[in-house]
Amino acid sequence: MKVALIQPLVVPGELRENLARVSGLCRQALSQGAELLLLPENCLSGAWLGDLSDESLFYEECEACEKELLEIAGGTPLLFGNAFVLGDNPRELSDFPEPVPYVFGQAERRRKALASLAREHRLAVAYVASVSAGNAGKTWRAFDGRSSLFAASGALAAELPAFEECARVVDAGTAEAARPAPEGTDDLFRAIALQTRMVMRQGGIRRVVVGASGGIDSCVTAALMGTIVDPDDLLLVNMPSRHNSATTKGIARALAENLGCRYAEVPVEPSVELTRSQLQGLPVPRLGGKGAAPDAAADRLELGPLHFENVQARDRGSRLLAAIAAAFGGVFTCNGNKAETTVGYATLYGDCSGFFAPIADLWKHQVYALGRHLNEKVHGREIVPAAAFEIPPSAELGPDMDVEAGKGDPLVYPYHDFLFRWWTESEERPGPFASLSRFADGTLAARIGADPELVRRLFPDAASFVADLERWWKAFKGMGAVKRVQCPPLAAVSPWAFGSEREEAVLPLFFPSKYVELKNSLLRKR
Amino acid sequence: MKVALIQPLVVPGELRENLARVSGLCRQALSQGAELLLLPENCLSGAWLGDLSDESLFYEECEACEKELLEIAGGTPLLFGNAFVLGDNPRELSDFPEPVPYVFGQAERRRKALASLAREHRLAVAYVASVSAGNAGKTWRAFDGRSSLFAASGALAAELPAFEECARVVDAGTAEAARPAPEGTDDLFRAIALQTRMVMRQGGIRRVVVGASGGIDSCVTAALMGTIVDPDDLLLVNMPSRHNSATTKGIARALAENLGCRYAEVPVEPSVELTRSQLQGLPVPRLGGKGAAPDAAADRLELGPLHFENVQARDRGSRLLAAIAAAFGGVFTCNGNKAETTVGYATLYGDCSGFFAPIADLWKHQVYALGRHLNEKVHGREIVPAAAFEIPPSAELGPDMDVEAGKGDPLVYPYHDFLFRWWTESEERPGPFASLSRFADGTLAARIGADPELVRRLFPDAASFVADLERWWKAFKGMGAVKRVQCPPLAAVSPWAFGSEREEAVLPLFFPSKYVELKNSLLRKR
Repeated sequence: MKVALIQPLVVPGELRENLARVSGLCRQALSQGAELLLLPENCLSGAWLGDLSDESLFYEECEACEKELLEIAGGTPLLFGNAFVLGDNPRELSDFPEPVPYVFGQAERRRKALASLAREHRLAVAYVASVSAGNAGKTWRAFDGRSSLFAASGALAAELPAFEECARVVDAGTAEAARPAPEGTDDLFRAIALQTRMVMRQGGIRRVVVGASGGIDSCVTAALMGTIVDPDDLLLVNMPSRHNSATTKGIARALAENLGCRYAEVPVEPSVELTRSQLQGLPVPRLGGKGAAPDAAADRLELGPLHFENVQARDRGSRLLAAIAAAFGGVFTCNGNKAETTVGYATLYGDCSGFFAPIADLWKHQVYALGRHLNEKVHGREIVPAAAFEIPPSAELGPDMDVEAGKGDPLVYPYHDFLFRWWTESEERPGPFASLSRFADGTLAARIGADPELVRRLFPDAASFVADLERWWKAFKGMGAVKRVQCPPLAAVSPWAFGSEREEAVLPLFFPSKYVELKNSLLRKR
Repeated sequence: MKVALIQPLVVPGELRENLARVSGLCRQALSQGAELLLLPENCLSGAWLGDLSDESLFYEECEACEKELLEIAGGTPLLFGNAFVLGDNPRELSDFPEPVPYVFGQAERRRKALASLAREHRLAVAYVASVSAGNAGKTWRAFDGRSSLFAASGALAAELPAFEECARVVDAGTAEAARPAPEGTDDLFRAIALQTRMVMRQGGIRRVVVGASGGIDSCVTAALMGTIVDPDDLLLVNMPSRHNSATTKGIARALAENLGCRYAEVPVEPSVELTRSQLQGLPVPRLGGKGAAPDAAADRLELGPLHFENVQARDRGSRLLAAIAAAFGGVFTCNGNKAETTVGYATLYGDCSGFFAPIADLWKHQVYALGRHLNEKVHGREIVPAAAFEIPPSAELGPDMDVEAGKGDPLVYPYHDFLFRWWTESEERPGPFASLSRFADGTLAARIGADPELVRRLFPDAASFVADLERWWKAFKGMGAVKRVQCPPLAAVSPWAFGSEREEAVLPLFFPSKYVELKNSLLRKR
C-alpha cells in the first residue's frame, strides 16, 4: 500500500492558510498515487492555542475546514486529528491533544520508541508530525516534523527532513533502509530560526534592529537574523560608551559589512552624562514639615559605579533601541544567552529587553558553536568576524571589563555553563547540598561535564568553591527569578527552558540545614 | 469542648519564622484553656512554593519543625497539614495541597458552603486558614484567613477577622451567633497591602519610589504605599514634559505633602530633546556596497508624535525611576490599572515597568473607590488630593491629552471597564461575536453592568460600535498580550487575573465567521 506522509508547515490559529497548505500537499501525494493519506494531529488548527482553545466558534471553523479537506481527498482514505465541539453545550470542547515539541537531542529517543513499537506489534509504524512553532506566552517551542516510517522489523524505512514542509509517498511494506541524519548544531539553528520566523509572522514584523556590541552573543543573533530578514530590513546599532573598546566597535561594523545590512553608531555617553547631571546629588527632601531636620547627605541621591553600569544598559535598550526600532518600523532583539538568564546577569529594561530572545536557551558554548555553524554551513562565508570568537566575553560596562586588557564577565563559562545546566536541566534538580557534596567527594566536574583540571584550578579550597556557589545560587533563585518574570519571550530548545513552562515562585532563599552542616565541617577543616 | 482557631501569618518558605509564629499562637490558646488546637494546612511551609516543592530537603525540614510544634502542644490534640517525603525515594514527595487564594466577593460563597456542610452532617464545622500571600512568578495572590466556626444548625458561631494574624478559643457547642462583616473596598485594600508587604519582605525591600504624575492611579498607589512604608523611605518623583499641566504637577506635590514623604521633580524634557537630536534623521545606510544606491529619505530615521509619546514614558520608567530607585536603595512601583493592562494602553519599559503592580488587577472605578477608602477610612484624612478625583484620566503624553482642556485617555472607563471585565472575568469568556450580538439585541449594557444611556450615547450606530469593539479586541489579544509577557508581577484580587494563572498564547487575531457575517449584515442595514 502506498502511504503518504504529509508534513505541513502549520501556523497556530491560521485555519484557512493551514488548510491550503495541507490541501496542496495532499493533492501532490494523490498525484503520486497515494492510497492512504496520513496527516498530523492539529494540522488545521495548530497547537498551543492558549485561551483560543476555549472559543467554541473556533472549533466550529475547524470542523468546517475538515469538510473541505475531505472533499479534496475524494475517496482516498485519510487519517488526521482535528478539534471539535463534543456535545450540545458549546463549552464542552474536545480535549486538545498537545503535540510534543522539539527538544534538542531527543530525535534518536523518539526513533527508538517507534522502532520498538513496530517490533512489538510486528507491524509497520508511520509517524507524522507538523513543522510548526507555538508559544504559551513567554516560552516558544518548535515542532520538528521528521515524520517517519518504520518497517515491521523495526528498521527505519523513511524519514522526512526536520523543520521542512514536505510530503512523501512510501510503500508501507518497503524493506528499504533509511539512514537518519544525526542531530547537531544545524537542528538548533533550524529550531530557533523557525520560532523566530513564527514570532515575526504572528506579529506582522518585517524589520528588525539588533543592538551590536561586538560580543559573540550579539554577533550570533545578528548572523541568525541575517538568515531570516532581508539585509535592507536589518539594522545593526552599535551604542558605545567610554568603556567600549576599538576592538568590539570594529567587530560590530565588520559584522554589518559582512551582512550587507544597515548600520548606525549612536553613543550613550551624552545621555549617561545627562542622567549623571540630573540625578547625582539630587535633593530628595521630605515635604510637609513632619520629619526631622533635613540631613543634607541623607537627603541627596548618590549614584555609584554599579548604578552607572545599569544606566548604560538601560540607555541602550529602553531609550535608543526601543525608539530606533519603532522609527525603523520594526522591533529589536534580546541577545542574552542561557547562562546570563539563569543568574540574571543582565539589566532589566536594558539588555534584558526586546521582542524575542532567540539564543536565551543556548549556553555560551552553544552560542559559539552556532556562530561557527552560521559562518561555515549556513552563510558559507565569514559573517561573525573571527575576532568575536577570540576576545573574552565582556559586558564592557566598566574599567574592570576591558577586553583589550583581557578582562571580562565574572562568569567563567567553561565551568558555569555546565554547573548551571546541571542545576536547571537535569532530572535530579540539584541544589547547594548536592553541589557541595560532589565538590567535596571530587565528582562534580565529571557529573556536570566540565574539565576537572579547570574546576581544580578555579577552586583550590572549599572556601573559594562555597563563595562561588552561594553567589550564583543566590543570583539564580533571587534576582535571576525576579528578572525572568519580566524578560522577553524566548526560543526554547532544551529539555527545561525558562519562561511559562517552568513555574518559578519568587521565594526566600533556602539553604538546607544539611548544606550548612556540610559547609561548616568543610570550612573548619582548613 | 474548647477549640482554638489558629490563624497565623505565614511567609512561604520561611519554616523557622512560621514555626515561631504558630507556636506563639498555640501557647496563647493553651493558656486560654484550649482542648483542641486547629491549625491551617501548610502553616509551616506556606503554599505556592514553585520548584521549592520539588526539593526533598525542604520537606525533611518541614518534618523537623513539625516535631518541635508537637512538643509545644504537649498532650493537647492538634490538627494541621504539613508536607513530608512519602517514600524512601527522595523524589517521591507528598502532594502539596494548594489552598484556595482570596478572590474579592467570594467570602459569602465560602460561608454558605461551610454552613450547608454543617447542616448536612448535623455537626459543628470549623474552618481554619492562614493569612498569607504567595506567587507563581508573575501573579501574586493573598490568603485572607477569615477562619470560622459553624454550629450544627449551620449558623455562624464565630469568624476571625480577614487578613489579620490571630487565634481565638471558642466552645464547639456554642449557640452564639456571629455577624459576618460584609466584603467591601477594605478587603481589596487589605488583600493588596498584604501582597505588597510580602513582595517587599521576600525581596528584602524597605524603600520605595513612586512615579507621581498627579493622575489617580499614581496617587492611589502612593497613598497605598504610605500605609506600608515609612515616609522617610517613600520617595515620590514627578517627571514632567512639556505636556504635563500645572494642575497635575500641583496634585503630585500636594500628595507628597499630605504623606509627609520625600519628593523630587526631574524633567524628562532634556532627555527627550537629546533623543530627538540623536535619532531624528539618523542615517541608517546599508554597508558592504551590496545594496542599491542609497536613497537619502529611506536611509534616515523619522520619528513621529506617537514615537515621542513612548520616548517620554520610557524615559520616566527606565532612565529616571530605575536609576533613582537604585540610588535611593529601593525599588519603584508600576502604577497601571486593569483596563490599561487588558488592552496594553501603556508603554513597555515605560509606565509598564517596576518591581510590583499593586493596582493592576483593579478596574479604574475600583481605583477611585480605593482612593476614597484610603482617604476616609485608612489614613482618616485627605492624602489623595480632591482634584485627582476630578480631572479626566490622561496619560498627558501629547496635546490631545490636555487635562486642562478636559481631554484625556481614549478609554471611556465607565464603559470599557465593564466591557473588559466581561471579556476577562466572566465564565462565558465572550468574544467579538457575543459582544456584537448583545449590542445588536440591546442587552449589552445590562449584561456588562454599564449605564445603558452611556452605551447608546457612545454608539449611535453599529458602525461606531464595531470600530470601537475591533480596536480594543485587537489591542487585548494583540499588543496587550505581547506586553503582558514582559509586564511586572501584580497583586491579584479578581476571579481572573492576568499573569501566570492565565495562559495567553500570542496568536493571530481570530474573528469568527459568525462575527463577520453579523457585522456585514448590521453594516448593510445603515
